[in-house]
Amino acid sequence: MISVRYTALLNVARHASVRPMVSRTDIAAAASRIAPYIRHTPVLLLTGSELGVRCPVTLKLELLQHSGSFKPRGAFNRLLSEPPPAAGVIAASGGNHGAAVAYAARALSVPAEIFVPHLTPQAKVARIAGYGARVVQTGETYADALAACRRRQAETGALDVHAYDHEAVLAGQGTVAREWEQDAPGLTHVLVAAGGGGLIGGMAAWYAGSAQVIGVEPHGCPALHDAVRAGRPVDAPVGGAAADSLGARQVGRLMFPIAQRFVSAAVLVPDDAIASAQRLLWDRFRLIAEPGGATALAALLSGEFIPPDDAHVGVLICGGNTDPAKVAS
Amino acid sequence: MISVRYTALLNVARHASVRPMVSRTDIAAAASRIAPYIRHTPVLLLTGSELGVRCPVTLKLELLQHSGSFKPRGAFNRLLSEPPPAAGVIAASGGNHGAAVAYAARALSVPAEIFVPHLTPQAKVARIAGYGARVVQTGETYADALAACRRRQAETGALDVHAYDHEAVLAGQGTVAREWEQDAPGLTHVLVAAGGGGLIGGMAAWYAGSAQVIGVEPHGCPALHDAVRAGRPVDAPVGGAAADSLGARQVGRLMFPIAQRFVSAAVLVPDDAIASAQRLLWDRFRLIAEPGGATALAALLSGEFIPPDDAHVGVLICGGNTDPAKVAS
Repeated sequence: MISVRYTALLNVARHASVRPMVSRTDIAAAASRIAPYIRHTPVLLLTGSELGVRCPVTLKLELLQHSGSFKPRGAFNRLLSEPPPAAGVIAASGGNHGAAVAYAARALSVPAEIFVPHLTPQAKVARIAGYGARVVQTGETYADALAACRRRQAETGALDVHAYDHEAVLAGQGTVAREWEQDAPGLTHVLVAAGGGGLIGGMAAWYAGSAQVIGVEPHGCPALHDAVRAGRPVDAPVGGAAADSLGARQVGRLMFPIAQRFVSAAVLVPDDAIASAQRLLWDRFRLIAEPGGATALAALLSGEFIPPDDAHVGVLICGGNTDPAKVAS
Repeated sequence: MISVRYTALLNVARHASVRPMVSRTDIAAAASRIAPYIRHTPVLLLTGSELGVRCPVTLKLELLQHSGSFKPRGAFNRLLSEPPPAAGVIAASGGNHGAAVAYAARALSVPAEIFVPHLTPQAKVARIAGYGARVVQTGETYADALAACRRRQAETGALDVHAYDHEAVLAGQGTVAREWEQDAPGLTHVLVAAGGGGLIGGMAAWYAGSAQVIGVEPHGCPALHDAVRAGRPVDAPVGGAAADSLGARQVGRLMFPIAQRFVSAAVLVPDDAIASAQRLLWDRFRLIAEPGGATALAALLSGEFIPPDDAHVGVLICGGNTDPAKVAS
């Protein structure tokens, strides 16, 4: 039994007859495909007392991945599965996916065009441009940038690399779980931040019930939580400190059946808990995580998710693209 | 064969008859003793192309250790080997050792008094005080703080925890190498920053010739380099960007025979190479290292140390106690 304080919804719809869109075989194939381009990120085993809980905790430091987040896993898997045309690749992003697509495109010598909204932090815009991509900043949120990206794609014919709602992207992000299981077998609960759901969808497809996968979202971006409550992807608000990385209006169409089957709970955390988690990561670990990168840890530290004493909890630190002065001041 | 550009001095004095002060058995015992208090820090395997070299490179992320540097290993080993009197513990430090002693003293419920010089950055002073120790800031360099610490120790009778020149401290720091060998067997060259030499001395005692251990120092703090050249510990200048962590006037009396036997070279790097290494660690890895923590990597990036193509180089990132705004601006 897990204990969750507020609005977490244990999944009740176990659609055993629904075949997940992404299998462990797909994820293993993705891992082989992307291995030359991806860092095997390290784990850090902690006594729970360091974090105020009564079970061991393993962090996976995916913020050390190329481009500062997990996103290159899905981007490389997509680009290597479906070689882009001469027009190159195009993507909409809150920032991290755009940086990953730009990074992958440069590695594979393909031109890239990235659409980001105005809420994308300057650090991410600079990072995308630094990888040689053309950056277009337009609209208020990710959904606006996505609409503009689609119009442009119709003109250029470039390969549209969706940030989460594509099988190859889900399988690529699922490699985080495969790698983690190798390095930290026996995790009972895995806390993962959720935005559009590509990461948690891919990871849940890998664990497939062998660990309880728990989605964590800020109150300002509850797309998974609202979808679980409604029984289908629905429009959710987009706001708060992590909106640039977790601010999808809806979770993906492909991830939702996976979540219904293999995600155990959708936990919400307030922005101040995220800021506290960022400060703790700096004070005690010398790690700079962006708000979305610290969101999963916030669920544990704030007591929104309370693990049982015999648990071994995994917490994914998934991104570090922020201005350190905002964290460590 | 290794290739070193500038002032590296291969050791020529192999005193096979000298018994090292610290053995692998001592280090293994230290590892068992301190295990409940220490983080097993992770490694990150990189293709050399990421760093502009032609062999694989493994980073060990010791900056994720408690208190932000490797120093608690030696501090805990000393305090657990020799329980302090009621007066507690006392230490002189450029900052990191003081933070580690303060952290260990708090964990073991012992009072601590720490002497630091005026060159110690405010971030480190605050960290020491944050662990509940009494901090005395006095003198220009570590050597001045050490003199004041000794005068005070004669009054109080507290246990004086030397920053490097003690068997228990050397054995504790040597556990970095033991842990690294477990996680990354087969390293051919290990780059380690050197100050007073407790870390590199302990690590060299572990590797004992099975890997080439290479000391890296800033031009401003060449205590190991100058000692190797002179054939004995001699006074060296203390200055530059890493003086707070690497600014010992002399290397330790106990580490020097170990270095003569098991350290292959003492490489010097300029401060701008250290700053470049700090920037690269942030840009490509989202890691904030302090100048001393990035010094070993600077030798590789700057070409001061050029590994052979069939090498597997280990680089220790040994500390992160700095203001991130100085690194990531």
